[in-house]
Amino acid sequence: MFFCKMAPTSLAYRFRQSVAPTALRSYAAEFISTFFYVFSVVGASIASRKFVPGAAATDPSSLLVVAMANAFALASAVYIAANVSGGHVNPAVTFGMAVGGHISVPTALFYWFAQMLASIMACIVLRVTIVGQRVPSYVIAEEMTGFGASVVEGVLTFALVYTVFVASDQRRGSCSAIGAVMVGLMAGANVLAAGPFSGGSVNPACAFGSAIVAGSFKNQAVYWIGPLIGAALAGIVHDNVVFPTENVDSFTGVPDAVAV
Amino acid sequence: MFFCKMAPTSLAYRFRQSVAPTALRSYAAEFISTFFYVFSVVGASIASRKFVPGAAATDPSSLLVVAMANAFALASAVYIAANVSGGHVNPAVTFGMAVGGHISVPTALFYWFAQMLASIMACIVLRVTIVGQRVPSYVIAEEMTGFGASVVEGVLTFALVYTVFVASDQRRGSCSAIGAVMVGLMAGANVLAAGPFSGGSVNPACAFGSAIVAGSFKNQAVYWIGPLIGAALAGIVHDNVVFPTENVDSFTGVPDAVAV
Amino acid sequence: MFFCKMAPTSLAYRFRQSVAPTALRSYAAEFISTFFYVFSVVGASIASRKFVPGAAATDPSSLLVVAMANAFALASAVYIAANVSGGHVNPAVTFGMAVGGHISVPTALFYWFAQMLASIMACIVLRVTIVGQRVPSYVIAEEMTGFGASVVEGVLTFALVYTVFVASDQRRGSCSAIGAVMVGLMAGANVLAAGPFSGGSVNPACAFGSAIVAGSFKNQAVYWIGPLIGAALAGIVHDNVVFPTENVDSFTGVPDAVAV
Amino acid sequence: MFFCKMAPTSLAYRFRQSVAPTALRSYAAEFISTFFYVFSVVGASIASRKFVPGAAATDPSSLLVVAMANAFALASAVYIAANVSGGHVNPAVTFGMAVGGHISVPTALFYWFAQMLASIMACIVLRVTIVGQRVPSYVIAEEMTGFGASVVEGVLTFALVYTVFVASDQRRGSCSAIGAVMVGLMAGANVLAAGPFSGGSVNPACAFGSAIVAGSFKNQAVYWIGPLIGAALAGIVHDNVVFPTENVDSFTGVPDAVAV
Repeated sequence: MFFCKMAPTSLAYRFRQSVAPTALRSYAAEFISTFFYVFSVVGASIASRKFVPGAAATDPSSLLVVAMANAFALASAVYIAANVSGGHVNPAVTFGMAVGGHISVPTALFYWFAQMLASIMACIVLRVTIVGQRVPSYVIAEEMTGFGASVVEGVLTFALVYTVFVASDQRRGSCSAIGAVMVGLMAGANVLAAGPFSGGSVNPACAFGSAIVAGSFKNQAVYWIGPLIGAALAGIVHDNVVFPTENVDSFTGVPDAVAV
Repeated sequence: MFFCKMAPTSLAYRFRQSVAPTALRSYAAEFISTFFYVFSVVGASIASRKFVPGAAATDPSSLLVVAMANAFALASAVYIAANVSGGHVNPAVTFGMAVGGHISVPTALFYWFAQMLASIMACIVLRVTIVGQRVPSYVIAEEMTGFGASVVEGVLTFALVYTVFVASDQRRGSCSAIGAVMVGLMAGANVLAAGPFSGGSVNPACAFGSAIVAGSFKNQAVYWIGPLIGAALAGIVHDNVVFPTENVDSFTGVPDAVAV
Repeated sequence: MFFCKMAPTSLAYRFRQSVAPTALRSYAAEFISTFFYVFSVVGASIASRKFVPGAAATDPSSLLVVAMANAFALASAVYIAANVSGGHVNPAVTFGMAVGGHISVPTALFYWFAQMLASIMACIVLRVTIVGQRVPSYVIAEEMTGFGASVVEGVLTFALVYTVFVASDQRRGSCSAIGAVMVGLMAGANVLAAGPFSGGSVNPACAFGSAIVAGSFKNQAVYWIGPLIGAALAGIVHDNVVFPTENVDSFTGVPDAVAV
Repeated sequence: MFFCKMAPTSLAYRFRQSVAPTALRSYAAEFISTFFYVFSVVGASIASRKFVPGAAATDPSSLLVVAMANAFALASAVYIAANVSGGHVNPAVTFGMAVGGHISVPTALFYWFAQMLASIMACIVLRVTIVGQRVPSYVIAEEMTGFGASVVEGVLTFALVYTVFVASDQRRGSCSAIGAVMVGLMAGANVLAAGPFSGGSVNPACAFGSAIVAGSFKNQAVYWIGPLIGAALAGIVHDNVVFPTENVDSFTGVPDAVAV
């Protein structure tokens, strides 16, 4: 704290920080959480296809299976990583956090690497163990344009990343555990709304890993462009418009006329 | 507290309060939360129709999709706005708060405007991006009378607004985060009970926005009269019968004119 | 505490306590919570029948609708009453609390009256507003014996009441809000397990109100004998075996004889 | 703490601790929680079969019924036992805790006995009361190999036990109640992903009890080998890699050798 004059935010310094033991534990936590999130979500997608052959989520029950897997797996995945890495579990969240200056760029790149690797590994385990079923990649509905799907994914990712920002805001006190639940619920609501149209990935790592293992990168851009733009906007709106931070001693409600 | 004689609650004073920076942040928070709530709920309704053409919620699975979207989206929408605007996300809640004197009338009108605008915008985004699907408006079942549907919506809104009042009551201590979950669960239970009969809107903004974009205002009064009466009654019963208060200066929502 | 020698727990004293203003607020809270719980659960049962004519819960989706309505409605109903009446919302819970000495018998009778009245009122409102649908009464599956169904309902009620006892135990600190969620989850799990066999009422008030309005009391004893025995056992096991207490003067519910 | 030189951790000492009154209360809590967990999960499996004869979980709705029963029942079962026994409700969790040194081996064996007995009893009650339905045993999908199913069960159990370790970590402060919710959500996500392939037991007691009563031990090893390896790894990774601890004498579960 006292010796910060030597430009500690230089790239070299930041990189050294990114490979410190606490940072390495963060990457392990991101790997574990993303692995189990992707395992559950892609596994549930395969499971719902087992009964109803064809494209994913072709009836409301299949949609529910995938949405519930998203909500439940994301809530618990965020929870188990929250105290170590912040519980991003999503490259879009990491991107939004980096844009907002909450984590450094080198650290964000390591987070991305851990998330991507975890997603690919989870899809490989699914493919190897579940014989006779292929790993599905995310697809957009036939009637959707790539631009429309990207807008939908962007809107959903804005919602998700904004929720992560609110849940991560330490000014809320001891609410971080319930924050993980909220992030999961928001993801579940998102998938229920957009699953049959844009695929409802909201997580570039999940879309990337399943595309790698499925060998199909069709529309992959949809799951990157929209979410990254949405994530960056969510962080900017949260930090500058709705929750600007000068000195926030009074928070709940609109405290008007507290004193004259 | 001591200097309340100068009539600080004059309309002009209240209006000035309603356009203060903290108030503007409240409206932004209401806009964001209502946008994502309506996006999820109406999106889920479109999604469930995609598989089963015809009226909304024609089988138990579709009903579950819409109810879960309501529960999950409302819980997270209330959560992300709770610390700024009180997390109304619903004109009926705002109405009940205004009737109970917890927010001023000018502020309530701005809340309503933000909620309505958000709902219309969300429906427009859905309509533009999801090609080939029309935005559904809320409808009542054929066998229902308009009066009966309005009573059902009123009963449900009473339940929802009463829950919001309990969750907003600061005497409960640090339970506001779990309060957001409870509001979502109550909404989900409501939709499961009433979805196939009255439509299960419980939110005039949601009904209004989808009616605007769908271009159909049939039975629109059902989604306003019952809910507003139910909301007013809920606030009155909460504040006067079950949780009577000696001095209610501390309350979430926008506390107006606490001191001069 | 010091002046308890004058037999303050005489029946007359207890009755006077049972009509004190705080007690009356408890009955109002029990009425409101039970009304909305029964409205949601019986409404969801009607809703799931609308699509699939015949007996309740004839396919997994209908079972999910009813179970989710139970879980969501009970969690929020317990929550909104917890700080006033203890959030029983169930005559079996009240019975277990009375057997364990946590509320007085006169108070318990008033609780029962409020719960019964609320259940009947909720079913009447459903019957009047939802034209063309009859209110269903709980039935046991054809292959079940009355004794077997009563055992199942008793086991489920033990689980529910035991959870209420744990959630109400003030030694857990600030967990009462999450306790309401747990009570709801336990009820949902119960209905998923037993719904198609014993009906999965677990709540004598719910079974009684719907039987009154449906005009069918077949197997009504199943929904009273098992649950009341299970509730009493749950309280006894909690207070004496698993969570034995030295001095239990502090407990939720209406505290009787707090001072003289 | 100071007098630990007399080898208080000798087997005889540990055994005496294992039959102390507080330990006996732990076994009772494990018995009650495991009984209700197995009752709900196996009951829901029977319920979903009632409508759709054949193997368990043959359509997405049945899968949802079983997964929701898992999530809801496990969350509430862990919650009601958490303050007494640590809320294991699963021999794999107990195994992971024993491997990590958080409970002693004699205590772990008593936990296992209580869990097994509870599971068998729950299945017997289901078999006796629900006439005309047989208790199902867990089966793996035809296309799965025993090794693949064991890997899947191991991965899922790693996720579950890791979540239990995080939730039990007292450094998180007052989050243990929400921790129970997270454990339930992780279990629900697991079943949604793996239910139709490996059976999604993740709980050797559940698989063992239903196999005993169903009289079929085919593939029983799948539900023991994978989960126990996964549980041990989860504990090791949690305690040594992601959450390394300086001195971990305080932990939930039955604390052994607290004093001499």
